[in-house]
Amino acid sequence: MITVAFQGEPGAYSEQAAFDFFGTNIRPVPFPTFDAVFDAVESSTCTFGIVPMENSLGGSVHRNYDLLMRYNLHLVGEVIVRIRWYLYALPGVHLHEIRRVISHWQALAQCERTLSALLPQAEREQVYDTAGSVKLLAEEGRRDTAAIAGRRAQELYGVPILREGIEDDAHNYTRFVVLARDPHALDEPSAAPRNDAEYKTSIVFAMRNRPGALFRALAAFALRDIDLTKIESRPLQGSPWEYLFYLDFVGHAQSAHCERALAHLGEMATLLRVLGSYRRAKMPE
Amino acid sequence: MITVAFQGEPGAYSEQAAFDFFGTNIRPVPFPTFDAVFDAVESSTCTFGIVPMENSLGGSVHRNYDLLMRYNLHLVGEVIVRIRWYLYALPGVHLHEIRRVISHWQALAQCERTLSALLPQAEREQVYDTAGSVKLLAEEGRRDTAAIAGRRAQELYGVPILREGIEDDAHNYTRFVVLARDPHALDEPSAAPRNDAEYKTSIVFAMRNRPGALFRALAAFALRDIDLTKIESRPLQGSPWEYLFYLDFVGHAQSAHCERALAHLGEMATLLRVLGSYRRAKMPE
Repeated sequence: MITVAFQGEPGAYSEQAAFDFFGTNIRPVPFPTFDAVFDAVESSTCTFGIVPMENSLGGSVHRNYDLLMRYNLHLVGEVIVRIRWYLYALPGVHLHEIRRVISHWQALAQCERTLSALLPQAEREQVYDTAGSVKLLAEEGRRDTAAIAGRRAQELYGVPILREGIEDDAHNYTRFVVLARDPHALDEPSAAPRNDAEYKTSIVFAMRNRPGALFRALAAFALRDIDLTKIESRPLQGSPWEYLFYLDFVGHAQSAHCERALAHLGEMATLLRVLGSYRRAKMPE
Repeated sequence: MITVAFQGEPGAYSEQAAFDFFGTNIRPVPFPTFDAVFDAVESSTCTFGIVPMENSLGGSVHRNYDLLMRYNLHLVGEVIVRIRWYLYALPGVHLHEIRRVISHWQALAQCERTLSALLPQAEREQVYDTAGSVKLLAEEGRRDTAAIAGRRAQELYGVPILREGIEDDAHNYTRFVVLARDPHALDEPSAAPRNDAEYKTSIVFAMRNRPGALFRALAAFALRDIDLTKIESRPLQGSPWEYLFYLDFVGHAQSAHCERALAHLGEMATLLRVLGSYRRAKMPE
């Protein structure tokens, strides 16, 4: 059976992303940290890994960008999950009894305005995971506490939902990528010609620090009408104020015009690595 | 007396940055969050604010980028501080007694390898602030605990330093910016012509999402040989997978070629705001 490493407790959105991408006939395996997810794939403990790269409100998960560089894994897929948050409390608890709300800091931040209106008297307390906050609530059994997590935590931990959809902004999506040791792990054995617009490629590169360097790098894509979907800069370790650039663009690295763009970039870059080409995710309904 | 709002406890590197920038004849005022620092400047509770924008190892402090957009303050200065970390423990405590290391997560991350070698048996625990971890250690009085903070925590909280310079990488610098309500708060009343290379300008802009958009935006600078020192992308709230770009470049917004570059960018951008022009910081020795 396919095993998929994810970070968090069962019921976390990363686990949901694994089911959305692979279907339900897999075994998701929880790990406490993103580092441990990468380790699990590298050591072949799990077939695949799935990690969040960015949230449409909170932005990039920078740790995972850094780990892509540190490990030699490949991106073989992506999936976008709509994020909705639910307020959990023990049976019979009313809003006015709640003095403390626990969850992952990102979930707390995404419900900030709703919480201020709903529970002005409650303190926020950060815990390591959203689903984990409901697990903790069930274990502690405190009637003065509410937790924030996705819907699946309800069936898993048996704590009732007090309020649905408490996120401040409904446009809340997280983009996950699928990691594998083998770059071809999910290749389709199709004889049909590939529609390049249905694929995305992720790369990481560095340039010598001089005026116009990034402009020249982007020229390799812009002059070939290749659409960039994301750029992220991260510090180059050991070189203060120099950067690695992570770029996502539309197209498969093995299509002719992308191959030429990458060769062009390679002429200028001090470092260039293709992290993977994979089918573009659709936005969920 | 000039008051300078900073985030953290006395002894934090943000306070050090305030002294490095303004000299010692100021009163730094501690606040628990970055949001509170921005509030303090906007409400004129403090004359200036000082916040970290990026660390050469850990990368950008994304919350502060978001707050620059949310508030209408101006960047009027920058300062770079060398970051060194010190291991604190109660008097007479030996390394082998330590079972728990507390600090801000960034400090813990920056000492990860050293800690693994020095204290393989110790658990890491995140607290809200580096200097605050030493304060906590002094209050708790636990002999099984060590804290990580900068050197100034020693005089402030009377806890001895057990090990000096425990950071994994010596190239550890944080760049802070100075915030003010008045963009001209620190203007120099000089009649001498301005040397543009000694100034930096920070802007934020958004482009309509189409192929080559970022390339065209950067052309406004590259075609005028204006050197970019930093680019940071952040999610555009309410528009999934669209981005705000924060750009730092060399030159003063009021010099002729920068004015033209900004006008050029303005023709294409859906949003453009100059956050401020200020004297470039020198790297500390």
